[in-house]
Amino acid sequence: MIMEARARQCAARLLEDRGTPPDAACLQADVLIEAELRGLPSHGLLRLPRLLARIDKGLAVPAAVGLHHWRTTAVLEVDGQRALGPIAMMAALEAMMPRLQVAGIALAAIRNANHIGMLAYYAEQAAARGVIGIVLSTSEALVHPYGGTQAMLGTNPIAIGIPTADEPFVLDLATSLVSMGKIHSHALRGEPLSDGWAVDSSGRPTTDALAAKHGAIAPFGQAKGYGLGLAFELLVAALAGSDLAPAIRGTLDASEPANKGDLLILIDPGTRDGLAAGLTEYLNAIRASRPLHPDRPVAVPGDGARHRRIAALRDGIDIPAALLDELQRVGGDCKWT
Amino acid sequence: MIMEARARQCAARLLEDRGTPPDAACLQADVLIEAELRGLPSHGLLRLPRLLARIDKGLAVPAAVGLHHWRTTAVLEVDGQRALGPIAMMAALEAMMPRLQVAGIALAAIRNANHIGMLAYYAEQAAARGVIGIVLSTSEALVHPYGGTQAMLGTNPIAIGIPTADEPFVLDLATSLVSMGKIHSHALRGEPLSDGWAVDSSGRPTTDALAAKHGAIAPFGQAKGYGLGLAFELLVAALAGSDLAPAIRGTLDASEPANKGDLLILIDPGTRDGLAAGLTEYLNAIRASRPLHPDRPVAVPGDGARHRRIAALRDGIDIPAALLDELQRVGGDCKWT
Repeated sequence: MIMEARARQCAARLLEDRGTPPDAACLQADVLIEAELRGLPSHGLLRLPRLLARIDKGLAVPAAVGLHHWRTTAVLEVDGQRALGPIAMMAALEAMMPRLQVAGIALAAIRNANHIGMLAYYAEQAAARGVIGIVLSTSEALVHPYGGTQAMLGTNPIAIGIPTADEPFVLDLATSLVSMGKIHSHALRGEPLSDGWAVDSSGRPTTDALAAKHGAIAPFGQAKGYGLGLAFELLVAALAGSDLAPAIRGTLDASEPANKGDLLILIDPGTRDGLAAGLTEYLNAIRASRPLHPDRPVAVPGDGARHRRIAALRDGIDIPAALLDELQRVGGDCKWT
Repeated sequence: MIMEARARQCAARLLEDRGTPPDAACLQADVLIEAELRGLPSHGLLRLPRLLARIDKGLAVPAAVGLHHWRTTAVLEVDGQRALGPIAMMAALEAMMPRLQVAGIALAAIRNANHIGMLAYYAEQAAARGVIGIVLSTSEALVHPYGGTQAMLGTNPIAIGIPTADEPFVLDLATSLVSMGKIHSHALRGEPLSDGWAVDSSGRPTTDALAAKHGAIAPFGQAKGYGLGLAFELLVAALAGSDLAPAIRGTLDASEPANKGDLLILIDPGTRDGLAAGLTEYLNAIRASRPLHPDRPVAVPGDGARHRRIAALRDGIDIPAALLDELQRVGGDCKWT
């Protein structure tokens, strides 16, 4: 177990050592640590060594924030200039806030920035400012179409954050049935996959995690989940001018520029009387509704992440020994434990 | 079989006979007939007798178009004034188009309008104007949360239309696993439901369609589909000021005002070189990718609807005898067959 404050400090230090401005290092570290705290290690410190390698090679430019061009009064086009993903995203978000007061809705379309990490981060940032946030991102081709067997789509996640009178509603999901991280983790542990998760490189359904790594993951929710993943793929590429999945590189390697895209839509929900309270009351009615299993109450998206975060802040983050060794090895004199 | 032109004419005549202005009658009939042509009878002429009854009772006001209030430069609030759903939607869409040139993105939030029918209609209308359209709508509580057994959410559909160099990409799906229409149709035919589709009124999983009618339908895609359905529920209510599912009435009855909400987001995709051609090329690569079953090529959302429409325009629409009788009975001297 490592404590959150120490992990944050060490991660930021490693980034600063490679020329990342202190504020930017803090933000990039925050996005990684917040993923760890929520029990999402696939978007946590695991990504840091690769990110540092990308900085060393000039594939990520730690002082860049992205070049802003307002194509219209409410649509911001961003050339990320190889910025760290979180830096480009938050710079766009801050630039959108004043426009939001006039327009009520604004969209940022970002290309040429690095991996933005856990999408929920930005949905929460929006909700913390009292506005609705919708985040979309694309990735390398990892997912096969419904009825298909070749990796043609990214995992194309979406996050939606909505302010309420209590904790905000925060949804964050990939349109793949499982993450490629989960396939890799099953492969590492030699565990079989569940039926229907993946196909191998020749397109045959497989429960062999090693074979699946070279094949494709199923979309979630059959035809509907495939349809949504594909719609998000097209939306991002159409608006950000980024590449489509089969041509995307640079979020899973340390050798190619990142050519995926990211969208951020912010909407001012206005100040209707009782709006926030009504949403909270409804979410609480859902939580209190009759569960399928008497001992497992109905949850609202974000509940689990919040509980895991509280526990991890108290007890520490569980980092695998191999990752810890790697983090110590990549340099710096910060003691992680 | 009835031919499309005749059906269109008769439906419009019935609406005009009840005081609907000719253009509005044409549009409302078009939305119903286009659903029939695409093989979506649950959103077709089946809805017409109830709609006429709603007009007779003043629950639908056929000459209303909705009261427009631009809350900000790009957010249009619409009090539907009990208008027919398609009339309120298309009036909002037309009002948004000039704003789109300046803002690049615009949102309409509509409350107090009647059922808008098949959402794909508006996504297609947007795409036909060269812009991206995203449509959301809410409904009576019919869907249980993932891990729950009570109907707490609407079927909360989404449609996304994206212009390409060829036919537009059009996705239209409900966030329920199946439609309540499908449950009713199984009940009528005495067929059992598939496992996992529904629970009965006491929350027990059931394959009895009659029992399911008084219970709840499962969300699609387990926790993820539930999360999306819930996010759409909150988005619509927060922005339109409409009710949340448990309090919603008026799309399945002929006795209550419609208090659900509808959202329409339009986005100008700009004029990036090769954008539309790139999207078409990608969709064709997906269609040409290796299928799971050699005799069933991979489809793109909207392909099936387009094929069914072509066939129905040629061969006619298959209307059940009971519905045809009902349509003849509601009045007018138009011969449907």
